[in-house]
Amino acid sequence: MRLEPISPMRATVFSRGKTIRATIQKGYTMPKTTQKKPRRPKQSGKLRIIPLGGIGEIGKNMTVVEYNEELIVIDCGLGFPDEDMPGIDLVIPDITYLESNKDRIKGLFLTHGHEDHIGAVPYLLRTLNPPIYGTPLTLGILQNKLEEHSLPQAPRLKTVKAGDKVKAGSFEVEFIHVNHSIADACALAIRTPLGTLVHTGDFKLDPSPIEGEMMDLVRLGEIGKEGVLLLMCESTNAERPGHTPSEKKVGASLEYIFTTHPKKRIVIATFSSNVHRVQQIIDASARHGRKVAITGRSMLNIVNAAMDLGYMKVPKGVLIDINDIKQYKPSQLTIVTTGSQGEPMSALYRMVFSDHAQISLDANDLVVLSASAIPGNERLVGRIINELSRREVEVLHDAVVEVHVSGHACQEELKLMQALTKPKYFMPVHGESRHLAANRDLARFMGMKEKDIFISEIGKVLEIDKSGAKWNGTVPAGKVLVDGYGVGDVGDIVLRDRLHLSQDGLIVVVATVDVDMGLCLSGPDIVSRGFVYAKESEDLLEEIRKVAADSIANILRYRKIDRIQIKKRVRDDLTRYLYNKIKRKPMILPVIMDV
Amino acid sequence: MRLEPISPMRATVFSRGKTIRATIQKGYTMPKTTQKKPRRPKQSGKLRIIPLGGIGEIGKNMTVVEYNEELIVIDCGLGFPDEDMPGIDLVIPDITYLESNKDRIKGLFLTHGHEDHIGAVPYLLRTLNPPIYGTPLTLGILQNKLEEHSLPQAPRLKTVKAGDKVKAGSFEVEFIHVNHSIADACALAIRTPLGTLVHTGDFKLDPSPIEGEMMDLVRLGEIGKEGVLLLMCESTNAERPGHTPSEKKVGASLEYIFTTHPKKRIVIATFSSNVHRVQQIIDASARHGRKVAITGRSMLNIVNAAMDLGYMKVPKGVLIDINDIKQYKPSQLTIVTTGSQGEPMSALYRMVFSDHAQISLDANDLVVLSASAIPGNERLVGRIINELSRREVEVLHDAVVEVHVSGHACQEELKLMQALTKPKYFMPVHGESRHLAANRDLARFMGMKEKDIFISEIGKVLEIDKSGAKWNGTVPAGKVLVDGYGVGDVGDIVLRDRLHLSQDGLIVVVATVDVDMGLCLSGPDIVSRGFVYAKESEDLLEEIRKVAADSIANILRYRKIDRIQIKKRVRDDLTRYLYNKIKRKPMILPVIMDV
Repeated sequence: MRLEPISPMRATVFSRGKTIRATIQKGYTMPKTTQKKPRRPKQSGKLRIIPLGGIGEIGKNMTVVEYNEELIVIDCGLGFPDEDMPGIDLVIPDITYLESNKDRIKGLFLTHGHEDHIGAVPYLLRTLNPPIYGTPLTLGILQNKLEEHSLPQAPRLKTVKAGDKVKAGSFEVEFIHVNHSIADACALAIRTPLGTLVHTGDFKLDPSPIEGEMMDLVRLGEIGKEGVLLLMCESTNAERPGHTPSEKKVGASLEYIFTTHPKKRIVIATFSSNVHRVQQIIDASARHGRKVAITGRSMLNIVNAAMDLGYMKVPKGVLIDINDIKQYKPSQLTIVTTGSQGEPMSALYRMVFSDHAQISLDANDLVVLSASAIPGNERLVGRIINELSRREVEVLHDAVVEVHVSGHACQEELKLMQALTKPKYFMPVHGESRHLAANRDLARFMGMKEKDIFISEIGKVLEIDKSGAKWNGTVPAGKVLVDGYGVGDVGDIVLRDRLHLSQDGLIVVVATVDVDMGLCLSGPDIVSRGFVYAKESEDLLEEIRKVAADSIANILRYRKIDRIQIKKRVRDDLTRYLYNKIKRKPMILPVIMDV
Repeated sequence: MRLEPISPMRATVFSRGKTIRATIQKGYTMPKTTQKKPRRPKQSGKLRIIPLGGIGEIGKNMTVVEYNEELIVIDCGLGFPDEDMPGIDLVIPDITYLESNKDRIKGLFLTHGHEDHIGAVPYLLRTLNPPIYGTPLTLGILQNKLEEHSLPQAPRLKTVKAGDKVKAGSFEVEFIHVNHSIADACALAIRTPLGTLVHTGDFKLDPSPIEGEMMDLVRLGEIGKEGVLLLMCESTNAERPGHTPSEKKVGASLEYIFTTHPKKRIVIATFSSNVHRVQQIIDASARHGRKVAITGRSMLNIVNAAMDLGYMKVPKGVLIDINDIKQYKPSQLTIVTTGSQGEPMSALYRMVFSDHAQISLDANDLVVLSASAIPGNERLVGRIINELSRREVEVLHDAVVEVHVSGHACQEELKLMQALTKPKYFMPVHGESRHLAANRDLARFMGMKEKDIFISEIGKVLEIDKSGAKWNGTVPAGKVLVDGYGVGDVGDIVLRDRLHLSQDGLIVVVATVDVDMGLCLSGPDIVSRGFVYAKESEDLLEEIRKVAADSIANILRYRKIDRIQIKKRVRDDLTRYLYNKIKRKPMILPVIMDV
């Protein structure tokens, strides 16, 4: 997942203490349905695991962990709309349950800075303000996002680093270093009075990372030896056998590409959040005597931030301003750009369709798409490749050369995670049903018993106490749709209408009637949009007018007719007529005025 | 591509003669622009190659080959709509050019029976009626399609078989056997006074086909030795290195699956047109003592037709009626079904979502998706896999086991085609720009000169005479959209409105005004659809009403105002207001009545 732009120097580090105590005041609000009970903490000794997102879907990852009257939240991400959600910009988790339990929240813990893990935080902060824990890059990216929103209160960002342990009520949360396609990613070990939970976040095992260390296998193994009650493990690549290749493999491909294309200008599109990828592109460019210019707002922001925070090292003199590229020959230039998903208006898209201020592409360019298409974006990416091919621009993408590796664990790494943590119970998370099922199959293969594996749903409560683990009811959960500034004002009915309108368009029938006299005083007039090309379909539109006129005249013969009945009759008659005539079902919108 | 259902016994064989002479009368119509010239055949000695579809796109394959005053057409396929064509059912080629040259057409030659090669024939037959040549299965499938349309004249179907040569004016067209994912597919060698053209159709090289022979390499090589002026070669898999595996590989996977799942009922979804695939499923079932039941209308039709025409051999007693499956244990049953693309309402979809009359799926079933998702269908197929996973039904698909192979040539086969035919000129066909470019790169690799390779566009004319080949102008070409019974009545404006409506819905503003008096007599009333959930947004809708009322009142102050000006003012004011307020742009449809 890509992330939003981050400006330099905004990623303030708030704290680096080894153990940070959550400072929010005690007290809690019970869920509305039980508010009549006396305000006394329940000491039930029960642990409750409640996913609010990321189960049965890709994105909007969010999980609640409760013990007695306290709860913590892991991640707060957004999702992208399906094709049956036209006009929707973002999808965020329904946090009604958290709002009903506001004062019980001891902290929000972010595993890493991708949109599907932090993207819904600005929306959560509209009504809640828990302390938010994350690593420097994660909170730096979040901080940058938050500045685009006006928030009711100052957010309480608490920076931690891998190895840190945070006390939050009766929980203690330890951040454990993992590899992923963004720097500074962590798994979480959550100590509770009933035992330790491990949440992997998103991870892969990279023995040769570009910067920093391999995933902290040792620490995970130590925690495993101490005993893990429940492992929540990501499932994105659970269908893929083997190991995910190291990020370093992309470096080898880049080296090959730079060596074999000495004359061309090289334009490389990738995810702006993948700072290690950008680092490798810069390194290859430096080795081959090329200057690097960066374009795309988010790419500029992240590179600046990553350099400031020390996640990226750029040799002196390599980076140049995009406005200075004319001073260099194609063979001396690398361009790093956003737009690897074919997003309209991204820098790459503008280059391809000749709308970029500094760059247009031709046969002297090589374009490298150093990313894979996120499911649903295949056609957008295909459009870019086609247009480049049409213009005789050479294109290299991940189906041709290994210019991208996944950030998620494949089957062997997932099994390794099982083997290290040796959990009593297992819950696959982060994935559609197919991925969760594949991860379950891996756990079975590792010897876990069927009864100890729990495939959850959003809002479904897994309850663990000393006697064992079992499903116990549900809490409110779902998808909240964001459309423009509106959050939650578009739901099923509105979407159904949008889909209907998109299929066959709309016919508005306008008439003024005198119901008492049984007369149609003016009209009906017909206005259509998205139905047929009106100028070439005058006959059809005139027929429609006649059908509507007959329909109104017929129903007006009856006594005690109201406007609703007239509308229904017009709608029914026209729908039937049009389906028989041309096999289409436009939306019929009768506007009947009664004098 | 899938094909439409075919009923048994309809695939009448019309002729089996070795050489068939086109019987249509002489005479021709010149294109409209040149009709003033005297009606005298031009003996220009020029060959013109004009793609009307299939170039820069997947589907709607159609190519015109002209010599002097005569022309023939290769294939007449349909395409499927892009995501920016909501409500559109099919896309067909614009045949204006053929309609303007009606009497010059000496024949339509079909390479095989897939929709993207024959699907637009019923539409062509509305205005044209050339003799149509194809192999028995191709014409059988076409015949079945044609019976769903009412045609102005009886179609003139002429059955040929591989090896046959058809005289059509000064052309002679030879059908050459190739392998593909449908039986009875052919390449065409077209002899013209200037030399021989080869059009590959869709092909792969399968040395171990399930039925019949390997592609006729020898004949292609003989023609190559005689000399090929132009090779038109399909490009679908031109980006893929290596060889496309043999269909027989799927048989080995099926054997493994049947052996390792002896207890389960096995449900296999595949393309109904892939009779060899169905044959292999039946063979594996018979070996493992299973009965085979078939469900899905197109699957039933094709199996019956293929058996009647001798393309499929079913051991006695293996096929059973779907209504009799209750008499057998799961371990004794194989179900062959449509729906491998996740199509809503297909037999598999109905099984998965518990809407199939005879079958619902559970943990005792194994579902095999013996197909790959056609680009654009990934999410539909994903939905099926997710729902099956959720129901704990085991699913095997092509990412897990080799249960599908492509029907199209990969790079080594494409190079072999080049090497066999040794063309003077080369035109990659059947593909998006990326595929055409990849096929061009293969031709370069084979040693062809840049100047002899022609990447065309639909409507673009490649002219070849004794002095060489060159581009020479264009003819009308494009996409004709089919929506319900309407052909061509939906164009850019209508689609733009549908997309607009789908994004943010619609607001209708209804008011009655007296322009002369400068008064708004009634309204404005606001009706919205697909915009916000009206019941929970009463305040917003009231504000919209006020903005519209102010807008109307303000403009009515001016003299000489007409309804168009009022509408524009209301549309502008509301659009600006809503974008500032909630960052949305619904369609604003003012209905202003003047008394």
